[in-house]
Amino acid sequence: MTQISRRRLLGLAGAGAALAGAGAVGGVAGQRLLAPDPFAGTVAVAPGQAVPFYGAHQAGIVTPAQDRMHFVALDVRTDSRDELVELLRAWTHASARMSVGAEATPGGATGGVPEAPPSDTGEALDLPPSALTLTIGFGASLFDHRFGLADRRPAALADLPLFPADDLDPARCGGDLAIQACANDPQVAVHAVRNLIRMGAGAVSVRWSQLGFGRTSSTSVTQSTPRNLFGFKDGTNNLKAEDPALLGDHVWVAAEDGPSWMVGGTYLVARRIRMHIEVWDRTSLVEQETLIGRRKGSGAPIGEVDEFTEVDLAARTTDGSPVIDSAAHIRLASPDSLDGVRLLRRGYNFTDGSDGLGHLEAGLFFLAFVRDAHRQFVPMQQALSTKDVMMEYIEHTGSALFACPPGVTEDGFWGGTLFA
Amino acid sequence: MTQISRRRLLGLAGAGAALAGAGAVGGVAGQRLLAPDPFAGTVAVAPGQAVPFYGAHQAGIVTPAQDRMHFVALDVRTDSRDELVELLRAWTHASARMSVGAEATPGGATGGVPEAPPSDTGEALDLPPSALTLTIGFGASLFDHRFGLADRRPAALADLPLFPADDLDPARCGGDLAIQACANDPQVAVHAVRNLIRMGAGAVSVRWSQLGFGRTSSTSVTQSTPRNLFGFKDGTNNLKAEDPALLGDHVWVAAEDGPSWMVGGTYLVARRIRMHIEVWDRTSLVEQETLIGRRKGSGAPIGEVDEFTEVDLAARTTDGSPVIDSAAHIRLASPDSLDGVRLLRRGYNFTDGSDGLGHLEAGLFFLAFVRDAHRQFVPMQQALSTKDVMMEYIEHTGSALFACPPGVTEDGFWGGTLFA
Repeated sequence: MTQISRRRLLGLAGAGAALAGAGAVGGVAGQRLLAPDPFAGTVAVAPGQAVPFYGAHQAGIVTPAQDRMHFVALDVRTDSRDELVELLRAWTHASARMSVGAEATPGGATGGVPEAPPSDTGEALDLPPSALTLTIGFGASLFDHRFGLADRRPAALADLPLFPADDLDPARCGGDLAIQACANDPQVAVHAVRNLIRMGAGAVSVRWSQLGFGRTSSTSVTQSTPRNLFGFKDGTNNLKAEDPALLGDHVWVAAEDGPSWMVGGTYLVARRIRMHIEVWDRTSLVEQETLIGRRKGSGAPIGEVDEFTEVDLAARTTDGSPVIDSAAHIRLASPDSLDGVRLLRRGYNFTDGSDGLGHLEAGLFFLAFVRDAHRQFVPMQQALSTKDVMMEYIEHTGSALFACPPGVTEDGFWGGTLFA
Repeated sequence: MTQISRRRLLGLAGAGAALAGAGAVGGVAGQRLLAPDPFAGTVAVAPGQAVPFYGAHQAGIVTPAQDRMHFVALDVRTDSRDELVELLRAWTHASARMSVGAEATPGGATGGVPEAPPSDTGEALDLPPSALTLTIGFGASLFDHRFGLADRRPAALADLPLFPADDLDPARCGGDLAIQACANDPQVAVHAVRNLIRMGAGAVSVRWSQLGFGRTSSTSVTQSTPRNLFGFKDGTNNLKAEDPALLGDHVWVAAEDGPSWMVGGTYLVARRIRMHIEVWDRTSLVEQETLIGRRKGSGAPIGEVDEFTEVDLAARTTDGSPVIDSAAHIRLASPDSLDGVRLLRRGYNFTDGSDGLGHLEAGLFFLAFVRDAHRQFVPMQQALSTKDVMMEYIEHTGSALFACPPGVTEDGFWGGTLFA
């Protein structure tokens, strides 16, 4: 797919031209913008290009992880189901448009009635699509009395338990709705989130929001493993887009899981993890590596030289002690220690100014997509929260769980299966 | 200059290889890393490449503005002049190294004694230089009784006045020291700031810190004009690296300005400007354009079609009213309205989570480099703070002024002229 600038799309849309015939271009609100793609979200695109919005699954889950993220959790302020559905429809159309680098609405920034507020805020006008993806999730609180959804709440959307070492700030937890915007240009991600919030003015308000500057996971074999703010490669053994069988086992909700409206969807666990980087930075290299279970430089398991060598948890040194420490993070988080549990991780590093105590407020915004958080994330976090020495260096300060519905067809909308 | 990966430099440094003969490579702490360059900081480099650290002026001022920024203001906690000078020397060496994509210290992340904490935190190990620049500034509070600098304080470093519409948060103001890190990869900028803070542990603490995700100014004719979060192109008439005469008039401190230790330096004004984007977004296009004085799409002055057409403040419509509104931002901020005053702007867009009231906390981190803030920034801000209708949509929540010393020679250090 060639790179389409927002300016070019704006020009074409303003002139009322049909954007047909461009091959990878399908229909949005009567215009031809982007075709449904059976491999939607799983195909690597160049950093500036467009990721298909429509498909069996939402984009932004197995899409090769983009470099930057803006995440927002929203409270719904209206009690009207119709108004909520109308907003979800409008969001879907706008998101499909912004995913190809277009404005939220045709001619939105400058092509409307001069006496009216523009319907796009304009700061992404000259920027390419930048691999923008927008992904929606529904929080448990959406399934209360307001919208007639109480009997449609998935059992798997039960609240996460409080973990032993949690220090959660209520202002960074929960939310009726969540929107994850990922892009290779942060201005494109922020623009998208802002315009969706704006479209919902009066109906939704911002509960919390998080900017992430560096991805901490690869979700495709085409990507190298990035580093978290402890300086270690993170997510070497992450699930990858190129292994649909594993994704089916661990990420996508299947018919037997129910409810039916969630089939093809997934659950999103969001955890804001403050890292006490100053304390970590006073720890010796050997302690850091022992605690993680990997070498800091190469990312290889202790005792190995290649990052991707399979971890052998049973290996012992000549004196009989385990090569991978008994409390090493990769041992505790290993599928072998957790009945085969695996997650699709998609987190981001953050720095939110200072903590008021002379330090940077920095950490990891942990995001994981799973078929059932209570069978996958919860046992892992229970193990980590009680046994992991790394907990001395981190603090979970925010937490949320969202049900991400399946992907959208060209005539559907986000949550169409839920509100059907 | 070819792109040098941190990994490659690490490998070479670890092997004790001399990095000589690479042409643009000069000396840092006994190693050949980067040559002094008479055009230091004024030459466009590819997004991943290295910007020369040494030169007559500090890098990061007229360097073509990078895409991302991490800014930190620090309090000095030691009363020892010697300790402060030692830290400035260490910072200078580390900054020169990180500017070429190397670790803060040779082999810092993984090449040291395993029983000691690594001397580089490692999260930028695999990343290219990404045009990183590090720029230091000294706040007025540094010139108190502690370091014997009271009689060296420049008159131009007098505190900024409180402007009529200011709503400053003391926790976002001032600082003994400031470090501006700009790079095209935010992880590289954050890594650099974090490692400099870490080297100063015990001697300095973080007062405030700001991440910026999108540049709002061009500082080179090679760059297109970016947009701020009001959706408008910002800084069309900014001073540019390619016009040294104007930079001499408006940016660099000259011998006649004094003090002598500041010659070749400049003053940095930092203002955190919260934008009430929700209110702005409810304003009509014609109001927005009238208020700015430019078209939103093209950036052209009202009545013109090209962004770079010179603004004619005297132009009138056929009915005799001014083409550029009498209260338009570009009129009030114009050199013609301010006795020829100009600034070198170098600001960034920011989004800092939510404001707790249902909105994004977003805005512009305004940075400007000037020869004398009291003769340039102050009269402009006085005019804007009292007459500019845009003040209804913004709020200045942080403020600081720093004296940025001149550039560093290969055997010098940041502030060498001050502490001589």
